[in-house]
Amino acid sequence: MALVKVYITLKPTLLDAQGRVVQNALASMGYDGVKQVRVGKYLEMQLDGEGDTLRKQVAEMCDRLLANPVIENYRFEVGE
Amino acid sequence: MALVKVYITLKPTLLDAQGRVVQNALASMGYDGVKQVRVGKYLEMQLDGEGDTLRKQVAEMCDRLLANPVIENYRFEVGE
Repeated sequence: MALVKVYITLKPTLLDAQGRVVQNALASMGYDGVKQVRVGKYLEMQLDGEGDTLRKQVAEMCDRLLANPVIENYRFEVGE
Repeated sequence: MALVKVYITLKPTLLDAQGRVVQNALASMGYDGVKQVRVGKYLEMQLDGEGDTLRKQVAEMCDRLLANPVIENYRFEVGE
């Protein structure tokens, strides 16, 4: 059983409207040192498997369901 | 200027409905080795400041706006 942590972020060239809203909200609360906010997704998955087979399967899950490869990047870490 | 990465997750005792939906979707696609999925948020922020002052400010932002301390846990990393 492996614990996989997946980080999904909007591609850097795209405007992150949600991040902009958070940044403005923080600024209105007095945190004006915040220059940029980008909001992404974070998933923790428990799954069977290990090694390269597991990594390949997780990459496939990201491409097919978890992330939108057109507008998002992803990376993941496999732990025990 | 520091790059801060914030990870926000639902508290472990709470049912993660969104995670359950993702898990079911993965199972229906044939990935039945997935035993649990929990969905959280991931934020990247560029902000001024450094050291303990910065860490304190980020914790305050999480408590006040970014996370809901009643149902969510957060952790963050400060990079350069």
